[in-house]
Parts: sequence; structure tokens; C-alpha cells
Amino acid sequence: MKKHNFSAGPAILPQPVFEQAAEAVRDFNGMGLSLLEISHRSPQFTAVLDEAQVLVRDLLGLSDAYEVLFLQGGASSQFFMTAMNLLDEKGKGGYVDTGSWSAKAIKEAQAFGPVEVVASSKASNYNAIPKGYPIPDGLTYLHITTNNTIFGTQYKALPETATRLVADMSSDIFSKPVDTERFDLIYAGAQKNMGPAGVTLVIVRKDALGKVGRHIPTMLDYRTHIKKGSSFNTPPVFPIYVSMLTLRWVKANGGLKAMQARNEAKAKLMYEAIDSNPLFDGTVAAAEDRSVMNATFNLIEGREDLFAPFLELCEEAGCSGVKGHRSVGGFRASLYNAMDLESVQVLADVMHAFTEKYA
Amino acid sequence: MKKHNFSAGPAILPQPVFEQAAEAVRDFNGMGLSLLEISHRSPQFTAVLDEAQVLVRDLLGLSDAYEVLFLQGGASSQFFMTAMNLLDEKGKGGYVDTGSWSAKAIKEAQAFGPVEVVASSKASNYNAIPKGYPIPDGLTYLHITTNNTIFGTQYKALPETATRLVADMSSDIFSKPVDTERFDLIYAGAQKNMGPAGVTLVIVRKDALGKVGRHIPTMLDYRTHIKKGSSFNTPPVFPIYVSMLTLRWVKANGGLKAMQARNEAKAKLMYEAIDSNPLFDGTVAAAEDRSVMNATFNLIEGREDLFAPFLELCEEAGCSGVKGHRSVGGFRASLYNAMDLESVQVLADVMHAFTEKYA
Repeated sequence: MKKHNFSAGPAILPQPVFEQAAEAVRDFNGMGLSLLEISHRSPQFTAVLDEAQVLVRDLLGLSDAYEVLFLQGGASSQFFMTAMNLLDEKGKGGYVDTGSWSAKAIKEAQAFGPVEVVASSKASNYNAIPKGYPIPDGLTYLHITTNNTIFGTQYKALPETATRLVADMSSDIFSKPVDTERFDLIYAGAQKNMGPAGVTLVIVRKDALGKVGRHIPTMLDYRTHIKKGSSFNTPPVFPIYVSMLTLRWVKANGGLKAMQARNEAKAKLMYEAIDSNPLFDGTVAAAEDRSVMNATFNLIEGREDLFAPFLELCEEAGCSGVKGHRSVGGFRASLYNAMDLESVQVLADVMHAFTEKYA
Repeated sequence: MKKHNFSAGPAILPQPVFEQAAEAVRDFNGMGLSLLEISHRSPQFTAVLDEAQVLVRDLLGLSDAYEVLFLQGGASSQFFMTAMNLLDEKGKGGYVDTGSWSAKAIKEAQAFGPVEVVASSKASNYNAIPKGYPIPDGLTYLHITTNNTIFGTQYKALPETATRLVADMSSDIFSKPVDTERFDLIYAGAQKNMGPAGVTLVIVRKDALGKVGRHIPTMLDYRTHIKKGSSFNTPPVFPIYVSMLTLRWVKANGGLKAMQARNEAKAKLMYEAIDSNPLFDGTVAAAEDRSVMNATFNLIEGREDLFAPFLELCEEAGCSGVKGHRSVGGFRASLYNAMDLESVQVLADVMHAFTEKYA
């Protein structure tokens, strides 16, 4: 029986994508070869890479000012690569600290130039997106984490500033339209809305590059990968292929506006289940900061003894990946693009049944 | 019809591995979930990672002095990461230049400390492995590329030196036993004998680390990945799984001694076909340097007009990936572990038939 997969990442992808990807591992496009054994410079794979790039451009409405790269090393590598390529002693990187990933980005950037944390919600264990803080002039960029997978918060509007943004969009890219012209750089580990683990999307504005004087190893210089169309060395063929299939699915299902409507409907159902059941509490302070992608919730104070029984009920109903991250505790239901409203209804029903039994 | 895949990389893997990998993309171990959508911290995937590590240790006979890491970024990232982690201004990295990949390793290392190229076969377009050169004392390490995929040469014996070696073994790791105690570090892109593109194996001697003073970004410091068992961030789940399956196959088929016997039999057949057919010449100067993994050959002078007809005949016989690299021209038959002797016989038969027709 296929599970309802609420995992935070690696995460659910569309079922037809799994079917097509499995077939490609057996035999790719009738070539008599597995996708895993063909050259990354074969016309069959370069067509995949090209289509993936065009789909990213098309879905996000990117102008020609931007390049699209498929790299390796995860968002964790982008924490230092962004600063290594964009920041030096003459500039200053602004950062908004909204969770564990923001904090890691700040730490890695500090080795490459001055860093100013312009706002942070750390004191409240990141249960909100900071708002109304002053943003100093003269920043090289302002770095944000648009969705905080662990803490269940999400920017619903971009910070108001003339400074270009750099953003970690790992967990909400392709979940809704974005005003990409506001950004110098967007990066995202694939393993939420885009594909399986093993490929990292980087979207970079060409005119932001080439401004720092330091030595950058060839593989860490975005210009290397721009020049070679993400094939300076062997790219992660299979993760890119599965990402391409997933983006095709997003497009065929109406693109980012349709994803947004779909995701908001699921989030509404999920948060209603949290709010209407007296045994549960959402962990995010303000409703407007609640993530559409990751709904975090907990048992009310004094009923923490029900942790295991609730997870057991989830398992019985075929809902997997509901356990929360250790930094927050409790539960987390991730509602990425590929998840159906029907699956969220199953979890909501479990919550109602649970409340009836234990409240 | 399944092709005979002579591609240099990404390359042939065992057919049962493709079958199992395809099934895991549909449903992993009966979990009701695809391997692509499960958490990298789930017990099901950590078991994969553990088994992959144990298989590497077991097959190569690694002592406890070594750590086994599964990273991203390919051997191209290791060109700079090795030097960044091991070399500084107080030391000196020795390099043997045996081809394009060695040359790239030399270029990337130079940013991190003094580099001495102790021998090179560049003047002869890398058609041999240098021998009999003096190796200076006091090197921090001596870097070699054990098999040169492009030029079809391979070390049959390691350089005689008390200095520890650092080696790019991308294209011959797991093809034969290796005296691993001679090395401080071994790295290999997976996409030849180990698995699909998207994961890089690093084997590092613990006591070689921590000796350089520079700042190393967290993701580029081998110690990060040692400490976190290759799961500091999300590892490339699918490429690691397929690598584990491939290493299981290597073990089930007798381990590295059996692979060596199997590979040498294929190479013997292949080089006999090259040497016995008057239309073809091997491109490597000395027979003892000929690679067991990649047999490079060309049409004799004056018969270059037969290039397309030969490739056509190969295609008709179901032999793919036989076209040589542009740096050498001609043809290349890669004979990695997973290739059967029967497939090599098919190509040898094509060569004989071709000679009969055109000689």
C-alpha cells in the first residue's frame, strides 16, 4: 500500500515521476541502455539537461539576466559558495536569521567578508519571521531563507528593500510564483519540491558575478558552470532527470499559480485540523508566518504522554514522516507540491479520531 | 535489445543492479514509498549507507586508520579539496602528470601551496606512464592518477617512494586489489566501476588531516563528513544506494582478485584484436602501460577515412560508446568490471569483420 508521505525531505514526488524514473533506470527512451550508464555528453542526456533548464526558466519567468545551474553539494555548499562568489572585504552581506539553515549560512559567510545580521527570531526559538526591522543601506546583498522547514515558518512577502536578495529556497521553490527580479541569487537543494537528493539548483544574475578578487577553485566558481552549461564535469545525471520529470509535472498541472492554490488548500485543511483539535497546538506564534509547506504542531502542555500513541495512529493510517524535528519536538506535516489534498484529509481524520479518543 | 556498452563513463553497471535500482525507485524494500522520497536519516537508508561503507572497507581491506566518505562534486572537486585539506605553504605536493585529469589536479592544487611536477608524459601526448624519475624527499604527498581514462594508460605498479600517495582512482578503483596502506587519500568519482554519477568516494587516512592552518568551509573539510558519517547534510541517496548494490555484486562475484582476473581476460582479448588487425594501432607507446580499463586505438595512418564506417559497424552489432575522446581521436573500448567477456568478443568480431572487408 502506498503511504501518505509527510516527510520533510527527501520528500514526496509525483507518483508518475517515480514510474517514469524507474523505467529509465531499466531502459532509457528505448536506447537499450539504462539512464545510469549513458554518457552525460550524449544527445539523449543533454536534451534532458536543456529541458530542465528551460522548465526552470519558464516556470519562474526568469529574464535573460539570469543563468540556471544544476550543481552538487546541497544548499549547505551554497552557504559558503554564495559568499565566496559575491562577498569580499569591501562589501557587507546582510542576513536575516530565521532558523538553523539561516544560522549556518551566516556562519559560513563570515569567512569571506563582513556580515551583519539585520534581524533574528532566535530568541523565540524561531517561531516567527522578523518584520519591521531597519535594513541598512549599502549591503552587497540581503540573504533570507524563504521557508524554514524545521520551524514551520515562511515569508509571505519579501523584505522591502532596494538591495538585491540572495535566498535559500530549498523548501518552497516551485510552490508558488516568485518575483525573481528581486534576487541576485536563488539556491535550492532539490529534495523537496524539485527532485531527489543529489542536485542543487542555482539561479544567478550574471551581473552579480566577477566582482570579488579572491582565488576561487574552478569547481566553486559559478562562472565555470555557466560557461559549461552545468557540464564542466559529470553532472548528477539521475537526480537531474528526475527533477526534469518533476518540473514537467508542475507545468502540466498548471504551473506555479496552480501549485500555490493547491498548496494553500492543503495548508488550510491542515491548520484547521491543528486549531480545531484541543489536544494540539501550532508551534508558530503568528498565523501569517505559518508555512504552507511544513505545518509544525505539538501536543498541548501536560499531554506530551500522547506523543507515541499519536504517531502510532498515524502509522496505522499509512501516514509516514509525521514526527517533528528534534529542535522543535512534536509533529510536522510537510505538504509539498506532489502531496494530494486527500492525503492531508487522511491525516486530519487521524487527528480528529485521536482527539475523540483522548480529549 | 540490450546494448554492449563500451562508454568511458558514466558507464556500464551490472544488469541486476539496474533491475534492483528500478524496483527501489518504485517501492523501496516494501515500505510503500520510493527510495527517492524517504528521509536520509531513516533506518532504511542509514542501513544502506552503513553497508556501502562496510563493503568499501571489506573489498579494499582498509585498516582502521582510514575513513570512508561518500561526498558530492566529483573527482573535479577533489582536485582542490585534497590540497585544501592536506597542503600548505610549509609543505610541498608532488604530482605525476599523466593526462588531462592530472593536469587539472595540479592546476587546482597550486592555489594552496607549493606544487612540484616530478614527472610528466605530456610531451608525448600522454601515451605512457613516466618511470625511473627521481622523487624528491620531503613531499607532503605524491599525487597520481592511477588510470587515465582519456589516454588509455594505467599504473601497473605504484611509484617507489616512502612518501604517502594521494590518488585519483576514478576509473580503476575496485577493478583489482590495491595496497591501500601506501595512501593518505584515495578519491574516485563513482561513475565507472562503483555506481552512477552523483557520488564521490573518498578514503582518507585520519592522521593526514588537521595539519593545515587555513580556514576550510564546513562542507569542504573532510573532518565534517567523518564526524557525521557522510550525513552532515543530505547525501545523494540514490547514487549511494546504486553504488552499494554494485559493491555487493563485486563481492558476490569474488571480490577484487576475481575482478582483476575477469578484467585482464577482457583486456587480453581486446588488445589482441587491436594488435592482430592491420587496420588498427593501439595509441599507447608501451604495452606495459596499456590500461586494463580503457583500450584506446586508432586506424592506421592513411586509413582515417574508415572512421565512420567502423563506428557504423559497431552500432550495427549493438556496440555503443566506442568513439574515442577528442584529445586522442580514434576509438576507445572501456572494459569496466560489469562488462562481460562476451561483449568484448562481439567488438573483437566486429574488428575482424571490418579488417576482412577493408584491409
